[in-house]
Amino acid sequence: MKSLGKDLRRLIPSDRVLTDPEDLVAYANDATYHVCPIGNPEAIVLPETTKEVSRVVRYAAESIIPVVPRGGGTGLSGGCTPTHGGIVLDLKRMRRIVEINQGNMTARVEAGMVTATFQEVVEKQGLFYPPDPQSMKVSTLGGNISTRAGGPRAVKYGTTGQYVLGLEVVLPDGEVIRTGSSCSKSSVGYDVTHLYAGAEGTLGVITEAILRLVPLPPARKTVVVTSAAVEDSARIVSAVIASGIVPAMIELISRGAAAIMSGSLPEPYPGGESHLLVELDGSEWEVDENSREIRGLCEGMGAVVRVIEDRRKAEAYWEASEKLYGMLLKMAKKGIVEDVTVPRDRIPEFVRAVSEVADRLEMNFDRGMMIGLSGHAGDGNMHPTIFFLRDVTEKEEEKAGRAIEELVKAGLSIGGTISGEYGIGIHKAEFIELELGKRQVDLMRCIKAAVDPKNIMNPGKIWIDGEAPGTCRTIAIQ
Amino acid sequence: MKSLGKDLRRLIPSDRVLTDPEDLVAYANDATYHVCPIGNPEAIVLPETTKEVSRVVRYAAESIIPVVPRGGGTGLSGGCTPTHGGIVLDLKRMRRIVEINQGNMTARVEAGMVTATFQEVVEKQGLFYPPDPQSMKVSTLGGNISTRAGGPRAVKYGTTGQYVLGLEVVLPDGEVIRTGSSCSKSSVGYDVTHLYAGAEGTLGVITEAILRLVPLPPARKTVVVTSAAVEDSARIVSAVIASGIVPAMIELISRGAAAIMSGSLPEPYPGGESHLLVELDGSEWEVDENSREIRGLCEGMGAVVRVIEDRRKAEAYWEASEKLYGMLLKMAKKGIVEDVTVPRDRIPEFVRAVSEVADRLEMNFDRGMMIGLSGHAGDGNMHPTIFFLRDVTEKEEEKAGRAIEELVKAGLSIGGTISGEYGIGIHKAEFIELELGKRQVDLMRCIKAAVDPKNIMNPGKIWIDGEAPGTCRTIAIQ
Repeated sequence: MKSLGKDLRRLIPSDRVLTDPEDLVAYANDATYHVCPIGNPEAIVLPETTKEVSRVVRYAAESIIPVVPRGGGTGLSGGCTPTHGGIVLDLKRMRRIVEINQGNMTARVEAGMVTATFQEVVEKQGLFYPPDPQSMKVSTLGGNISTRAGGPRAVKYGTTGQYVLGLEVVLPDGEVIRTGSSCSKSSVGYDVTHLYAGAEGTLGVITEAILRLVPLPPARKTVVVTSAAVEDSARIVSAVIASGIVPAMIELISRGAAAIMSGSLPEPYPGGESHLLVELDGSEWEVDENSREIRGLCEGMGAVVRVIEDRRKAEAYWEASEKLYGMLLKMAKKGIVEDVTVPRDRIPEFVRAVSEVADRLEMNFDRGMMIGLSGHAGDGNMHPTIFFLRDVTEKEEEKAGRAIEELVKAGLSIGGTISGEYGIGIHKAEFIELELGKRQVDLMRCIKAAVDPKNIMNPGKIWIDGEAPGTCRTIAIQ
Repeated sequence: MKSLGKDLRRLIPSDRVLTDPEDLVAYANDATYHVCPIGNPEAIVLPETTKEVSRVVRYAAESIIPVVPRGGGTGLSGGCTPTHGGIVLDLKRMRRIVEINQGNMTARVEAGMVTATFQEVVEKQGLFYPPDPQSMKVSTLGGNISTRAGGPRAVKYGTTGQYVLGLEVVLPDGEVIRTGSSCSKSSVGYDVTHLYAGAEGTLGVITEAILRLVPLPPARKTVVVTSAAVEDSARIVSAVIASGIVPAMIELISRGAAAIMSGSLPEPYPGGESHLLVELDGSEWEVDENSREIRGLCEGMGAVVRVIEDRRKAEAYWEASEKLYGMLLKMAKKGIVEDVTVPRDRIPEFVRAVSEVADRLEMNFDRGMMIGLSGHAGDGNMHPTIFFLRDVTEKEEEKAGRAIEELVKAGLSIGGTISGEYGIGIHKAEFIELELGKRQVDLMRCIKAAVDPKNIMNPGKIWIDGEAPGTCRTIAIQ
């Protein structure tokens, strides 16, 4: 491995090639607590330009060494966890904003730019980049694009893929292409841009993106809707959307979650089993009108409605909601966040299914293992989360695995998807054929083999296979 | 060829297999006047179910016969013009709406459904399907998806691709897959849905789609903005968008176009060189407020502003604009609509470039050949159109070809794209490498070879090649 470090230092200034054991350990996993690192990478490279990325990938292709692109490392499915050693390309130093174009409402940004930082910059210019994965203060635009990341605002604004107009990509042989354009319309052959958005780094390295922006909504308003049961909250979500109001965000907050957050709120959530935290945005008139309509609709369905008029108070609710997962993890020994997502109108069924799974597998406070349900209810992406309240036994690990499988199957049985916004990585690879069928996964495999015939780009992800880098895979190409 | 008809009649009821010469001629081209039919297809099949499509494609794969999927036949780039004979699959009989889901705001529809008919149905339920290609009264959803078709509403709402959540696709070997889901978020491996959206039928046959809907905006308002020069109109477009107002549509209407339409308008366009026809939609309050702001902004830039308060009168303007191309074609002998699109802030430069090309090539009324410029200015997709006012000589055809090439290059030099919404088909194939470079087109070729190794699906499209169906292409797959 010494020669790898030496080789890389010939391509990239040596202080940006890391091979010390403690550095390699730090890059052995992402934020996925439940995916065990499979082994350390052999070298970390911190490129600063697309040329440097290209040089490293070309070298890796010639030497048949795996390349794992990495952004903020906040992924929750093991997408940037190396499976076959090799080189981790940490893109965080590529974080320039190349251009913000007010008249065209687009930006050109390097892949390592931190999402929240980018949002702050464009908002100062009256523009808005809506995708808001909860890790956005650390996660990067390149990582968000590679996983089609979403967040609470997906209800109204959709997920990252819908804001990507074009990409700069380093292909698995080191060549560089530019896909898409700054035009708001384009129909020029296959949509290579959106093939790379969500490819989790398995088809090349995204180094730059052209992103679509929208005008920053001038007004926002937050509403808390409290119900006697989580099923009531679920029904309210569908009713609100069906009424023609599309809030920017609708989060489901369980009684337990509300209790945990209470310390960081100016005023705790009202008493009640289940809450919806709703954010409206648009013109002053629109948010006032919509908050009035929501009050009428929800009170008619038996809920208690509180409109948070003070913006600072409202922000406190949203900040607490963003930090909830972290707060929960501090209290529990371990947590596994699920990303199963269902069509919005099937949320009540999914809520019932989750509590049935918990009952059947006897997962509750007394047993030290629970399934919490708090998340982006507005788009059916409610992140059921398995918490271990004490040190975990092997048997409990196994039970958690069974619970995940049952949650996945429950979601799929009502038209859901195994991943709303995290991607497949390692964690969900065993389930992908359950959702898409073998033929469609084979189609993906054959695209991978065509684009990356040496299988060096982030191998061992998305589907289960035992093939090592260097294997020329030929499924369905004869 | 007799055996082809006989074989197909074993798979599909015989009245839905056409082999009469006059039928074959009718399917030899789409609406692209400037692409000469390359020869007739050998059989037309009118399937009514996905099973029937699958049966025909499986047979074609076994016999190595090209399959050309066809929707409304309104394409303007020769996308469904057969290049190697074979079977045309006319999907217009597959036009069922399988489901409209109000709570989830999605619909499941067969590919042969006519776009405008679908829009009418969902609008009756208070829902809205925004993509509005100007051919929408004839074009089908499957055709729109296959070309990522757009229309004037792309300014605010984007194009067809942004409304496709999932697809049912018959693969080139006859197998059927279902991509995506009814969930508003999904990150499950490669985005196969958007690989097929825009693939122009070269990777399989789209038979059904899951479409995203939005709430129908309760109010609309039309504004006419008249300027002394087309460059002024172009500047106004950028200024309006940069001010944070995003109209649903902004059409550029030249003085000539305004004169032609005047007969079908309740009140002709005001005197002036250039007009913008602007549609605002949203809440009552929003459209009133925005129309006031637009008036202030545009008057400040020297334009004359007329707000059309009466909805029926406003509709007349929009209908005339929709029919403009047809009206122009009736007056001219022939017309070639270009689809070059530029970033919104580069419109003024493109307008100048178009008039420079016309000047340099001496294309004007007296010479019997003109370049008109009317179209979707709001998204930079202004459709410069070459009109022949009398019978066309070979030399004039050549000049038109030169003009197209110059328009394409002018667009590309300012960050534009060779096709905003028509697709590449045959007409634009010679230019695709100019925009994307050879390496990116090779990437597309290698995906095509991996997914359709026998090259039976709509061969001879998107890029130029001489390879016939049956050729196993292996570019970049070694």
